[in-house]
This record gives sequence, structure tokens and C-alpha cells, in this order.
Amino acid sequence: MKITANDPNRKTWLKVDENSDFPIQNIPFGVFLTRDDIITIGTRIGDYAIDLGALHQLGYFSEIPLTDDIFLQDTLNDFIADGRKTWRLVRNRIAELFDENNATLKDNNEHKNRIIFEMNEVEMKLPVDIGDYTDFYASKEHATNVGSLFRDPENALLPNWVHIPIGYHGRSSSIVPSGTPIRRPLGQTKPPHLDSPIFGASKLLDFELEMAFITTDVNKLGQTISIDDANEYIFGLVLFNDWSARDIQGWEYVPLGPFLGKSFASTISPWIVTLDALKPFKVESPKQDPKPLPYLKQSGKKSYDIHLQAFIQPENGEENLVSNSNFKYMYWTMVQQLTHHTSNGCNVRAGDMMGSGTISGPTPDSYGSMLELSWRGQNPIKLKDGTERKFINDNDTVIMRGFCENSEVRIGFGDCTGKVLPALE
Amino acid sequence: MKITANDPNRKTWLKVDENSDFPIQNIPFGVFLTRDDIITIGTRIGDYAIDLGALHQLGYFSEIPLTDDIFLQDTLNDFIADGRKTWRLVRNRIAELFDENNATLKDNNEHKNRIIFEMNEVEMKLPVDIGDYTDFYASKEHATNVGSLFRDPENALLPNWVHIPIGYHGRSSSIVPSGTPIRRPLGQTKPPHLDSPIFGASKLLDFELEMAFITTDVNKLGQTISIDDANEYIFGLVLFNDWSARDIQGWEYVPLGPFLGKSFASTISPWIVTLDALKPFKVESPKQDPKPLPYLKQSGKKSYDIHLQAFIQPENGEENLVSNSNFKYMYWTMVQQLTHHTSNGCNVRAGDMMGSGTISGPTPDSYGSMLELSWRGQNPIKLKDGTERKFINDNDTVIMRGFCENSEVRIGFGDCTGKVLPALE
Repeated sequence: MKITANDPNRKTWLKVDENSDFPIQNIPFGVFLTRDDIITIGTRIGDYAIDLGALHQLGYFSEIPLTDDIFLQDTLNDFIADGRKTWRLVRNRIAELFDENNATLKDNNEHKNRIIFEMNEVEMKLPVDIGDYTDFYASKEHATNVGSLFRDPENALLPNWVHIPIGYHGRSSSIVPSGTPIRRPLGQTKPPHLDSPIFGASKLLDFELEMAFITTDVNKLGQTISIDDANEYIFGLVLFNDWSARDIQGWEYVPLGPFLGKSFASTISPWIVTLDALKPFKVESPKQDPKPLPYLKQSGKKSYDIHLQAFIQPENGEENLVSNSNFKYMYWTMVQQLTHHTSNGCNVRAGDMMGSGTISGPTPDSYGSMLELSWRGQNPIKLKDGTERKFINDNDTVIMRGFCENSEVRIGFGDCTGKVLPALE
Repeated sequence: MKITANDPNRKTWLKVDENSDFPIQNIPFGVFLTRDDIITIGTRIGDYAIDLGALHQLGYFSEIPLTDDIFLQDTLNDFIADGRKTWRLVRNRIAELFDENNATLKDNNEHKNRIIFEMNEVEMKLPVDIGDYTDFYASKEHATNVGSLFRDPENALLPNWVHIPIGYHGRSSSIVPSGTPIRRPLGQTKPPHLDSPIFGASKLLDFELEMAFITTDVNKLGQTISIDDANEYIFGLVLFNDWSARDIQGWEYVPLGPFLGKSFASTISPWIVTLDALKPFKVESPKQDPKPLPYLKQSGKKSYDIHLQAFIQPENGEENLVSNSNFKYMYWTMVQQLTHHTSNGCNVRAGDMMGSGTISGPTPDSYGSMLELSWRGQNPIKLKDGTERKFINDNDTVIMRGFCENSEVRIGFGDCTGKVLPALE
């Protein structure tokens, strides 16, 4: 099926700023609370939130096989479970309805009043009920940096890393939508100068610049998928801040991996941008040497050229760009991650989420965490207000942004933000 | 509130074998499909499954504040979210209804026909929708054995282990109820004699003898709980087989912990035995030296004397007892685990599950996995049919059982079984 929604020449009758992340070619999916306190599934064009539940009730999707209440839900899980054909039909139809040459909805003020909200009137919610969340460790630069800092610079990359998309299970319950304040965690740490651990507020609070993909139903328990099919099970992507308390993590993570150093909170951007919308931005991913085993061998363009940025904004201060990275730096691709994840028969469901791991590029300004940017505090980052940061301070807001851009169109993700509140007590 | 359901002198008008795991003093909770293909919440007495949905509809719980459909659901999550007071009222009322001196239900054949099923007429389902599943590593003997086998016998226990209830996030989607066949996983392994990894069926499939507890809603994100309050958030316990592919695990687990070596399947026993029912079996847990930090300091009797057994049954063969362990061997208690889990503000929800980790005792016959029992294959286990096992073979069934016993009463968990099917291809 043709993805007519991606037509770069299409213009909409809604007002959209030239540099908006959400032109008529994006059509992401999210969940929001309207000014009338009703929860609904929607999309976004420019600075307008579109109520898909109302659109469907008014008959605008009558040509598409959808259940009556598919958009009148508080999560996208059921819609995502409907599969790629349905996602395409719905995106194409939305593009058509808001096309500047289509007067059907444009000229119906009563319908427009029911369907269209300004973004500042709505409250964005978590878009999916995340069943299981897995985080990968897919940037070679990040894995090498962390290996150098935490273990041995001479053997920074462990032998399995180039053969396996290394991943671990994360905590679903503490994933929150952009804008939710983050409480600095308490925890057990062992400062190097002490013989025994202490309990208190984390001193080394960090962000991790990541993206995450959301899946549809992939396989039943005990079944596997082929790497050639994996792409069709990926619904879309969000920005992902995998908040990390480095001092808690450093003391607890051997031998079973990250736990409370991560599970206090993770933030996602609220609009899921579909893989379909990102299609014009496909690029090659880094060459894989050694060659992956056959079950992970993927052909064609494997990644997406998504510019990623992280900012620190002190309270009442300006935004400071601290990292400039790109999704394309990931060594292991989403398709390889998903295929590997199901290779043992583990079932993946609609609404499951898989994080990329911190995406660091080759140059120091493209590192995706303060741990790497400040090289464990050795090189503090100077902010515009004259202060320095080794890690994140109380009342700092961390903002992540991501966008794709070519000569014709810009597709973005909006903001993924979280303000750090002081620890309890 | 008095737990009258625990009265050891009570007898029931239902027929119950003397050695049943499910006397009138147990009253566990589960979810089953009736002979009429209706899913309901129920309890078990002897070899009878009791339909609590029907009991409630017939007015037998009218004195207890419960929503009308609380038992007409396919998971226990909402009932568990109602909290400990409600669990106690319901257990006490069930005990009263089935007391041999109470004729109300006993003499009503029409009601009995609607409410009581024989166990072989019903199909047990997963009792909860498990939001997040965490597995701990709480047996000192197990951690020491694994440390000796995988790392260094001289420094088997890592320095953090005696200070932290070490845990990691596990996979919820692949947790199945007892009786579900388990497919031997495919995966990446690196045999010692090869330079590069290979992909194929796991050769070192193992069980892990564990128990797991189910929580009610504990805390909101960013909040913590006191160790003195933790006990009231624990609903009950199940047997738990944390199936493990040792060869996949060994190659993948550094540095982020177990992943596909575990996530292909985990099995739980279908009846959740409440902490209330286990109360008569409280015992001291192992002395903790060094003393835990104040936030983990717990007073009183901390553990439960639950005998645990693992059996291997070859196809068409006899059961072979291969491990005799006990829940009381756990060094870190459930209350410490839950308190630690929330100490960073991580929110724990109704229906979340936390595994104990493999429970190994001090003697070799009490080790809770084949890895330890056969000491990585060096000492194969002889079965009654003359065959040997280093790990688990195709078509073997692994059976776990657990029970508490004193001079007055025996409270058990039923079976936790899974048959291993050959790998795909």
C-alpha cells in the first residue's frame, strides 16, 4: 500500500510553522486529555491536537475497518495491535482530510470545534500501556566509553558485544511522559574512600539520550521471527531519557545488571512517530565487523538519519545544548534487536517498548550522557550562566529533541523533558 | 482483624485428603476456566475449585464491601488492589461457609452445583496480569555456588552482595502457569573450544527452584516505604521455576545481566497462597552479618518454613526427587527486597511479581538448580531409570512442590510443572 501520507508536496489547511516538528507529513499518534477532561487517542498537526476518537465517531474513518471504540481508549495498544495495514490506512486518511484541497472537514465548523484542540489546551498522557520494556546497549561509542570509564580502557568492549545486540529487561512502571518531574533517587552507594556503603541521595544523576521503539504483537511464546519480517512489527519511535543514578548503578550492577540506578524514572516523548513517516530518512548504519550470525543478517538501508539533541536548562535559566548526536550512530539496528529478542521464543506484545541504549557518536560533543560528556566529572560542562555541570543538579530540566530533515520536509518528535526535584527528606 | 480462616481446628464439609496441600486453612486465590468455558476467580479446598464469582453473585459476600464484578474477572489484580483488610474478610468468610458446622451452603444443592467444580473439570490460568517482574538473588549458598562456578571460587561472593538484596528486572510476557509446555530455546552461545559464537538449540537447559511474591499497590512514583510497613503490601506466594539456558546466559550476561537465557519462559504455580495462610510457619531467617543499613533493618521473625522440592520426570517415567530445599534459607527477606525495590522511588503496583532467586540450602542435596546439583556437569544426577542428567533433557518434565507442615496443619502450593519440548527446527 502506498504511503500517500508521506507526500512531501502536500500542504494542510491548518496553520503550521515552517520549522514545526509536526507537518502534515508526520501524523504521529498519542493519547491526551481534552479541555473537557475526556481521554482520547489523537494526532498532532502543527500546534493542534486532533481528536481521532471524535473524528471516527463523526464517520470520517468509515471506509477503514476499525472497531467503534478503537480511538476512545486511554492507550494505543489495541490500535497498534491492528497492524501496519491499518496504521497506513489511518495515516493516509488523516493526510487527506487535512489536505488544503479537501474542503470536507475544513468547511465544517461544528466538526472542527469538536475535533481540533490547541496543544496548550490538552494534557499529554503515556501513549501506551507498556507491557515489557527492554533496553539495549547498541552504540559502539557509548559501550566503549562506558567500558573505558567503569572497567578497562584497554579492553573496553567486551568480546560478546560485536556478536550480540546486548540488552536487558527494564522497569515498565516508572516510565512517564514528557513533562513529569523526576525525583532525585535515594539509594545505596559506596564512595571509593569508604569501606562500607551508605544510603542517601544520589550525587551522580545523569540522563541517557536514547530513542525507543514500540512494537505490535510479534510472536507467540516459543515462536521466532525472521529478520526479513521484523520491520513490519515496529509501530514507531519516541525520544527516551533513561535517567541514571551512576553512583547507585556502579555499586549495584555486578553481576546482574542495572536495577535501582535506572528504575526510579524514565521519560518518553508523548507522540509516537511511525516508521512509515520516517521512511524518507533511511540511511546505512555502521558497517558490522565481524559479520553478524545469519539470523541477524540484514540487507538494505538499516537505520534512520535522526538528529538528536540534549539540553540542560537550569531553573529560570536558558537552554544549553550539551549533546548533538544521531540515531544513525547505532551499531545494532532495531530490526536486529527485535529479531534477537524473539530468537529464544520470548513473546513480544503490542505496546512493548525497546530502548536503543545511549546513542553516542564518534566525537565528544556527540556523547549521549553526562558520564561521557564530562568524562566522569573530569571535564565539567560550562553553561551559559557561568555554572558548571559534571552531572545533573536539582531543579535542572533536561530536554531532548529529535528531528529528521531533508530539502522537502522536516519530521520531528517534539520535546522529551523532565525537571529534577530534590531528593526526599 | 483476627485471621479466623487460620483456625487449625476447623473442619470442612467438603472431602479433603489428609495430606492435601489445600485444607480449609489454606484458601488460596487463583483464576480458572470452568467446564462452561467461563473465566472466574476462585479458591481451592481439597480437590475442589470454588467459583468465587458465583458465590458473590449468590450473595454470600454481601457483608463485605466488594464491587459486584470483583471476582468475575480474568485476573486477580483488582481484588489484590483492594488491600489486606479485604483479603482477610474474604478468606474468613470462605472458611465460615465451608465449615462443617455451617449448613447454609452445605444444604443448598442448587448453589453447590453452581459453585463447586472438581479440579479436573477446570483449567487453571495465570492468576495475575503481571505488570513488572523482578528477580532477586537472595540465597547466599546459591550466589556463592554460582560465583564459584562462573567466576572465582576464592571470591565467589561479590562485595555488594551482603549489603544489597541484589535483583534485576525480568520478562513478564513469558511467565506461564503450571502445565504449559516449555520450548527449548535457540540462542547464541560460545562453546569454549570455538573462537566465535554459534546459533542453535541450548544444550544446558536448567530449572531454578524459586518462590515469588505478588504485591498490591505499594507506592506512587517518587515515594518510598518504611520496612515496617512492607509486609502489608505482600499478597501471597507462588512456586516459581525460573527456567534458564546456562550456555546462552553465560555468553550474553556480561555486563548487563541475564536476558535471553531466562526470558524464553518462567513457570508459576497457579494458586497464590496468602501470607496470612502462611503466618503459622514464620521462622527466623539467616543471621545477617554485616548488619544491613538502617533502611533494611527488620525485626521479628522474618521468613517462612516452606519445604521446597524439585523433581525430574522423564517421558513416561517416574518422578525423581533431585532437590530438597527450603524458603527459609533465603538470606534477604521478601520485606527487605520490597523495601529496597521502592527505596529509589520506583513504583510497585498491584500484580507485580518478585522472585526470590534460586533457593539453595547448605547441603548439596538442597541446591536449587542443575548447575549446582551436577556442579556444572561434573557430578551427573542418577535417575531411577538408570539414565543420568547434567541438565534437563527434551521431554523431561520438571515438577516443583512446596508445603508447610506442623502438628496441626499442612499448607501447600500444589504443583508447578513444565515439560520441555525439543527446540524448533
